[in-house]
Amino acid sequence: MKDLKRSSPFALCHLHSPFYLIGIDLGGTNIKAVLITPEGKIVKSLSVKTLAERGPDAVMQRLVMVIETLKKWAIQKNAEVKAVGIGAAGLIENGRVHTSPNLPGWKDVPLARFLQKFTHLKVVADNDVNAFVLAEVTYGAAKGKKNVIGVTIGTGVGGGIVLNGKLYHGPKGSAGEIGHTTINFNGPLCLCGNRGCLEAYVSAKYIVEATICKMQRKGKSILSQLVRGDLSKLTPKIISEAAKRGDPLSQEVIRETGRVLGIGLASVVNLLNPEIIVIGGGIAKAGKILFEAVKDSIRERAFQYPAEFVKIVPAKLGTRAASLGAACLIRDR
Amino acid sequence: MKDLKRSSPFALCHLHSPFYLIGIDLGGTNIKAVLITPEGKIVKSLSVKTLAERGPDAVMQRLVMVIETLKKWAIQKNAEVKAVGIGAAGLIENGRVHTSPNLPGWKDVPLARFLQKFTHLKVVADNDVNAFVLAEVTYGAAKGKKNVIGVTIGTGVGGGIVLNGKLYHGPKGSAGEIGHTTINFNGPLCLCGNRGCLEAYVSAKYIVEATICKMQRKGKSILSQLVRGDLSKLTPKIISEAAKRGDPLSQEVIRETGRVLGIGLASVVNLLNPEIIVIGGGIAKAGKILFEAVKDSIRERAFQYPAEFVKIVPAKLGTRAASLGAACLIRDR
Repeated sequence: MKDLKRSSPFALCHLHSPFYLIGIDLGGTNIKAVLITPEGKIVKSLSVKTLAERGPDAVMQRLVMVIETLKKWAIQKNAEVKAVGIGAAGLIENGRVHTSPNLPGWKDVPLARFLQKFTHLKVVADNDVNAFVLAEVTYGAAKGKKNVIGVTIGTGVGGGIVLNGKLYHGPKGSAGEIGHTTINFNGPLCLCGNRGCLEAYVSAKYIVEATICKMQRKGKSILSQLVRGDLSKLTPKIISEAAKRGDPLSQEVIRETGRVLGIGLASVVNLLNPEIIVIGGGIAKAGKILFEAVKDSIRERAFQYPAEFVKIVPAKLGTRAASLGAACLIRDR
Repeated sequence: MKDLKRSSPFALCHLHSPFYLIGIDLGGTNIKAVLITPEGKIVKSLSVKTLAERGPDAVMQRLVMVIETLKKWAIQKNAEVKAVGIGAAGLIENGRVHTSPNLPGWKDVPLARFLQKFTHLKVVADNDVNAFVLAEVTYGAAKGKKNVIGVTIGTGVGGGIVLNGKLYHGPKGSAGEIGHTTINFNGPLCLCGNRGCLEAYVSAKYIVEATICKMQRKGKSILSQLVRGDLSKLTPKIISEAAKRGDPLSQEVIRETGRVLGIGLASVVNLLNPEIIVIGGGIAKAGKILFEAVKDSIRERAFQYPAEFVKIVPAKLGTRAASLGAACLIRDR
């Protein structure tokens, strides 16, 4: 009994009837969903485009479709879906999306209530990066750590904070927006309306733009081959892979990204003295080249004591972290 | 009994024997100390120069002198001093000063242990701004608030964080360094070694330099009269008073300081979603001119929801906040 409890947060319920949970990661680009057992084992996963440009109603219809698809899978396995956890890009409070820099038109949208109404399931919604950090603390790179910062670098740059072993939301649920830390007050305009946010320097769009700019100036790179001449196909993941394969131009981009990311994280290290910072997203695939640059930048800029203490590590759970974590949100409530 | 408990955190001890506590604020410029009753009433206060340039040993001798002076005062009142709380500028962990940007030569100095040895009193040491924010939460501008950021602007720019009703230290005690948030990564060199820290823009030294620079360019200001032509006597407090008296040049300096301070605080608002930010130090005396600029800057740069939620207020307890708070640290332990 004790071992069973230890092996899974949902194990007690498991004694009564077998059930599955759905975890959904609603990003600016993709909706990623998992159907998991109470022990956190992924039974089925799927990913569809968010089509965020079509607005909240269209996106919510797609979410309902995803949930219904996974419910059918559960039925095929003779299991019941009990609840849905959803991590969404943006500012979430009590299941409502107040605003989202990467989901155009989302203003005060009752996401959890809507999905609950149309799927007849219990739905818990939170910020997607809160879900991501919860997954990494529960199953991943920060397992067992008490003071953790999670950063995800994709369409936007998100952050999640675990302090003294608990997800820190702030009194209005909006805490954790590390991507919108100003690192240069005269810097480029960010999607959020501010100037010089960390996100305006290290988001997918910026990394790709900086790479294309370098390619136009310096020319030589294996990237052209990798995207077969179509630069619109460039992504941070492809650039990271090219860097790992030794492409000097890609390595330069990754190093610069790491340096700037480190500038933003140095402020967080000085402010919150975390034990560990977990970095996720396509760029984290660059491995050592990125992480050495981030660490050097933090060591150069933050106070020595917290800078030497903090560990900077890549996320372990891959693209399923936020959806897995979304399922963890159900337990958290 | 219940009312007595509510009126003072130290009231229970008060039932056994009358005693006083000493609270000390060790700043880069001044040592400020108070002798207080268990109810927080100040019996005696004193202030001496830190003479930080003479190094840690000399400063600690001055601290012992301050404690002995206050002990004599207590004896005159037929009371006993039970403990000393000390808030010191810098990075403090378990009573040791690891490093202090405003106290030259302080590296791994066992402050609490030394004072305990020479005064035979229980000594608790923490960051001075942690003490300040604790005082403002206990007696001052943030009374009863649970998620509070304290900022002090003096020789350095310090920060203290109360989350979910508790002082947040971080696992190594170094959390709260708001002054060393990078707001412009190509900005001026900060005393901490980083570039473009908030402190490098709004510390006393920078405010005075910016004012003198403006005076040399524009000339007209009542400041010359206020310091009788000796610009080396200029302080943020004098500039703040001139601004309040309508001096346009001083008002411009205060507004610019507020704007830049708001840039740094906007990041903290996005990151931690605080209920209230309490600002202390000479510049806070400028009142509305400063606070309107800070609020405008936060509204312009932070997400709307946490920006509208957060209150930005001046500290209430004046120059005695950190020393009063240092005494609160004793209770906190």
